[in-house]
Amino acid sequence: MTTAHAWAAHAAETPFAPFSFERRELGPHDVRIDILHCGVCHSDIHFSKGEWGDPRYPCVPGHEIVGRVSAVGSSVTGFAVGDLAGVGCLVDSCGACPSCGEGLEQYCENGATGTYNSTEKQTGLPTYGGYSNFIVVREDFVLRINHGEPDLAAVAPLLCAGITVWSPLRHWQAGPGKTVGIAGIGGLGHMGLKLAHALGARVLAFTTSPAKADEARRLGADEVVNVRDADDLARHAGSVDLIVNTVSAHQDLSLFTRLLRRDGTLVLVGAGEQPTYPNSFDFLARRISLAGSAIGGIAETQEMLDFCAQHGIVADIEQIAIQQVDEAYERILASDVRYRFVIDMSTLPAG
Amino acid sequence: MTTAHAWAAHAAETPFAPFSFERRELGPHDVRIDILHCGVCHSDIHFSKGEWGDPRYPCVPGHEIVGRVSAVGSSVTGFAVGDLAGVGCLVDSCGACPSCGEGLEQYCENGATGTYNSTEKQTGLPTYGGYSNFIVVREDFVLRINHGEPDLAAVAPLLCAGITVWSPLRHWQAGPGKTVGIAGIGGLGHMGLKLAHALGARVLAFTTSPAKADEARRLGADEVVNVRDADDLARHAGSVDLIVNTVSAHQDLSLFTRLLRRDGTLVLVGAGEQPTYPNSFDFLARRISLAGSAIGGIAETQEMLDFCAQHGIVADIEQIAIQQVDEAYERILASDVRYRFVIDMSTLPAG
Repeated sequence: MTTAHAWAAHAAETPFAPFSFERRELGPHDVRIDILHCGVCHSDIHFSKGEWGDPRYPCVPGHEIVGRVSAVGSSVTGFAVGDLAGVGCLVDSCGACPSCGEGLEQYCENGATGTYNSTEKQTGLPTYGGYSNFIVVREDFVLRINHGEPDLAAVAPLLCAGITVWSPLRHWQAGPGKTVGIAGIGGLGHMGLKLAHALGARVLAFTTSPAKADEARRLGADEVVNVRDADDLARHAGSVDLIVNTVSAHQDLSLFTRLLRRDGTLVLVGAGEQPTYPNSFDFLARRISLAGSAIGGIAETQEMLDFCAQHGIVADIEQIAIQQVDEAYERILASDVRYRFVIDMSTLPAG
Repeated sequence: MTTAHAWAAHAAETPFAPFSFERRELGPHDVRIDILHCGVCHSDIHFSKGEWGDPRYPCVPGHEIVGRVSAVGSSVTGFAVGDLAGVGCLVDSCGACPSCGEGLEQYCENGATGTYNSTEKQTGLPTYGGYSNFIVVREDFVLRINHGEPDLAAVAPLLCAGITVWSPLRHWQAGPGKTVGIAGIGGLGHMGLKLAHALGARVLAFTTSPAKADEARRLGADEVVNVRDADDLARHAGSVDLIVNTVSAHQDLSLFTRLLRRDGTLVLVGAGEQPTYPNSFDFLARRISLAGSAIGGIAETQEMLDFCAQHGIVADIEQIAIQQVDEAYERILASDVRYRFVIDMSTLPAG
């Protein structure tokens, strides 16, 4: 065991504070990564505030991890010391069920292991995430990073925000000839606009903030639709193939299902407030579907990272020091971030 | 114009009564069909009671029509006098939109013409359905019937109940290796069991009436699941690829979404009471979809009729005289029919 230093939530109501704990020894298939950057995801807030299940304090969040390999196990073949590496929301899964067999570890039928607030198979101890100086992860769950050095902080959010929108865009075949809507322009939504655009789709941005229109166009939207404007919505009725909905606030899904063309799909990717659902007849009228999608598998995360490196895509971020995490959480809750905070892990005290 | 004799609802609260009206003259592309049998669909009740939009009294329902061709227009090539023929829920559509181009006339973007309670393009007059002695229909909307004479009454319900379950079974690829659930064992559901079984799927029947278990097995179910029995449901959690839900009473859809395996689909085919929807997070957990499907297009209706003729499939019916329509409606509302009433149109008074 090796002592790791971290920044942890010790209770729902108290500020983050330093925390030290033991990481497991490097196994033959493990990669040790010294963490350079860690994105701040809304899930981090839910878990550290105890809003999603047992928070298992101290809670060390962080699942948008970019770092540099500092050690590899004896059987590791894909990574060498000094390589850049990424870790997303998952660090393990059963490897034996049909979903794992198809590279969809996020749907592991025996339960995938989350990067934090989960239980490590090797030790039975809690998993601790990326608000820490290093992490030990099975090679199969480590991603290659091909972006250049100056981009590394802005690559971190691809590991959760990026893959969460990439997976449904690919699964429901966003691309040339398709009209794709992205609802909500935040951490996930701004990546949705960039990725849908780069995939060649015609992109609509749905927002309740008309002030974000210019921003949305800069991010990749061909058109911006104000979902509070009935005329604007009516103009797009029945015209959209796929809507990836990243909204976490309460919403009326019928605003979006009406925009779908025949056989169109509205995909929920955020675990937000329970929405108001469309009238059941709306599903029949044009054979539309309402679906959900959860993060993404390892293979498709690598595919997304490679695509982003080729297309020069990164997240729009604001770098913060680890000491600013509490303040960043408050600003996220106030929607005051464009579009993702990323922690510069060099600011973490040595312990 | 030629005078047709029919049985019509003249108001929401009064019994059906005789009604005569003019059918359009046979155009070059029209087929005239003398009606032998007409199934009684739950929609007939909704429309004739004024529960779905303007009933446009007198209302002549009936869109499960089997008859014999008695005249053909000068340009008709696919039908000759004396042929058996069928007519379902649609008698026309624009023929120009993408949905019509794909043979999915039920989703015609300019509005398909319903067999009754719609407006005839040729005359601007109301359409009147199959509770009548003959009908005039564009050849493109007339179906070929290859079943033998003794089966003709029991073929009629295929034209609506049959195609309504066939279309989603085919679209979502029910077949060998798939587990398909049919929820509700009525007019549509009993056809769902027969068709899913004949397509080679493993078939689960979902019912709130355990007394129907033997019946469901006879109809094609491999297993019967009592949706009011939590243990029975739990045994099938995450195991079903496709559920075709024919239930029109209020229901909690989360009972069914929990049974879906990853990438499974729950399809609503009935315009029933607004259901209780699953928690939005349930959609994400296994990338499941909730969809709708409306009747079917002409090409797939023909495909279904041919499949049924090849496999010896017809509906389970109870034949009635036209004078029993009011009584049949009451029995349908009391769920006292196994599984479809079909009117013997020879009982219609000559006018």
